[in-house]
Amino acid sequence: MSTLTPTPIQVDAAFTETLKIYQQRVDAALLLHLPDPKISGTRLPSAMRYSVTNGGKRIRPILTYATGKALGLSLDRVDVAACSLEMMHAYSLVHDDLPAMDDDDLRRGKPTCHKAFDEATAILAGDALQALAFTILALNRDPLVSATAKLRMVEILGQASGAHGMAAGQAIDLESVGRKLTLAELENMHNHKTGALIKASVLLPAMLADPETSELQTRLENYAGAVGLCFQIVDDILDVVSDTETLGKKQGADIALNKPTYPALLGLEGAREHAQNMHQTALSQLDGLGPDFDELRMLSAYIVQRNF
Amino acid sequence: MSTLTPTPIQVDAAFTETLKIYQQRVDAALLLHLPDPKISGTRLPSAMRYSVTNGGKRIRPILTYATGKALGLSLDRVDVAACSLEMMHAYSLVHDDLPAMDDDDLRRGKPTCHKAFDEATAILAGDALQALAFTILALNRDPLVSATAKLRMVEILGQASGAHGMAAGQAIDLESVGRKLTLAELENMHNHKTGALIKASVLLPAMLADPETSELQTRLENYAGAVGLCFQIVDDILDVVSDTETLGKKQGADIALNKPTYPALLGLEGAREHAQNMHQTALSQLDGLGPDFDELRMLSAYIVQRNF
Repeated sequence: MSTLTPTPIQVDAAFTETLKIYQQRVDAALLLHLPDPKISGTRLPSAMRYSVTNGGKRIRPILTYATGKALGLSLDRVDVAACSLEMMHAYSLVHDDLPAMDDDDLRRGKPTCHKAFDEATAILAGDALQALAFTILALNRDPLVSATAKLRMVEILGQASGAHGMAAGQAIDLESVGRKLTLAELENMHNHKTGALIKASVLLPAMLADPETSELQTRLENYAGAVGLCFQIVDDILDVVSDTETLGKKQGADIALNKPTYPALLGLEGAREHAQNMHQTALSQLDGLGPDFDELRMLSAYIVQRNF
Repeated sequence: MSTLTPTPIQVDAAFTETLKIYQQRVDAALLLHLPDPKISGTRLPSAMRYSVTNGGKRIRPILTYATGKALGLSLDRVDVAACSLEMMHAYSLVHDDLPAMDDDDLRRGKPTCHKAFDEATAILAGDALQALAFTILALNRDPLVSATAKLRMVEILGQASGAHGMAAGQAIDLESVGRKLTLAELENMHNHKTGALIKASVLLPAMLADPETSELQTRLENYAGAVGLCFQIVDDILDVVSDTETLGKKQGADIALNKPTYPALLGLEGAREHAQNMHQTALSQLDGLGPDFDELRMLSAYIVQRNF
């Protein structure tokens, strides 16, 4: 691996434009994959659509597209993976917001699914979104990818979202409320709760590009792990410093719930420094990789600098 | 297709023994696939295990093994599919029992998952069981099955459980409470809510045996559809005629909830006749198929005659 220090990364206007393109791209692709509310006798498809098309940041699809591009894939070949990851993420938010879980009324400034519909429909919408996330991976008709690689993608998604991944993270989170966590415990929680699916966001396009390049896969996975933690740290910081309108949810919600956070553990400045360290860790994983990987570098810079 | 009328089917002692063997087989296999509660920091693996190992009838795995055997598969090659189907079924029961859904305190005579643990853990246990159901299909290392067939199995499971299958059925069910359904509407609900996964229970072993035999697949699917409806009709009848202890849930629960049922629509005798018709429909789908299919015939007889 190269020992060159990365040059400082500036988020430029072209990159911001690229983010918009990726967001619009996955938004359009998601609509193609979701069941049509018009041809159903129930509110389930509407609730699924509502939960997915609610102005999310689309960090996972953005990572997926940017990784795909870095690996030489055309964007249309990445659509299915991007949709699958966003559906899985959306389902987890719908269930996390339920009264029995975080009991949130607002998500991104809009009523949460169980508020806009009802609890039973929200549970089902989450369930059906999870099923669809797996189904579209299995239905991927891309002739340039082997069935073995597609199967591996299902496996990666399953591991990332299940009892050793996202669901475990949510369980750790639930059982940690009101308890004082160490930094290692907090990171373990985030690595499961969000990190696993964020890692899957780079691994799925890696499978599409070349299932055999394991060293590069490991570097991408480590990059995504660091970016994922950075995202969480910034989230915790924003919960302290932003107002409710910018956040689209109640400011100080984490503190009110006595949730473990980075600022609570490290102080605000310590948390900011930790986020910068994660950003540098992410960049270091891309050392020696060419300008094709600049979007991923810029994405990391964008995440550490974000204020929304 | 042969025009021979099937000889009357008698459930014999050997068949009852076979059912026990299949039940014990899937119980053992499930334990191998479930995450180990001992090595986890949370209650999630315990809640998953609790939900799966609660003395269920294992109709789906039984169908899967019996179909696999009819198609010449050794039972060990069917284990993964059987476990996957039972996990998917178990997750749906955990979520259906939640207060926001059917609000059931008892399932098979034991506290439901959210009663034994808590609501949040029950939601998560269901979520993680669904993820695991897909993951083990993708991880199936059976070298005799192509990756394409394995991918098709993921697709079948996804279609059967998602917004066009089981989840749709539950949505129809929720939105039907208190409304008068026609027989066609009731059957449409059951075809989605339980029929889709029961059909998958014969389609998965069909994929393992030979993904190309489409005429036989259609017959097996129709057989399973009829058996699935028969099972539901008998369920509704038992809800009227059995006592709470035998059912393991509150007797008359469906009526109390004003749920649409076959006895309510057809009367008790009409419902019994309808169940017999479904049994005959199931048998007719196996017309002309040899003694290898006798277990499936007997299973249909067993289901129409059951009193528990």
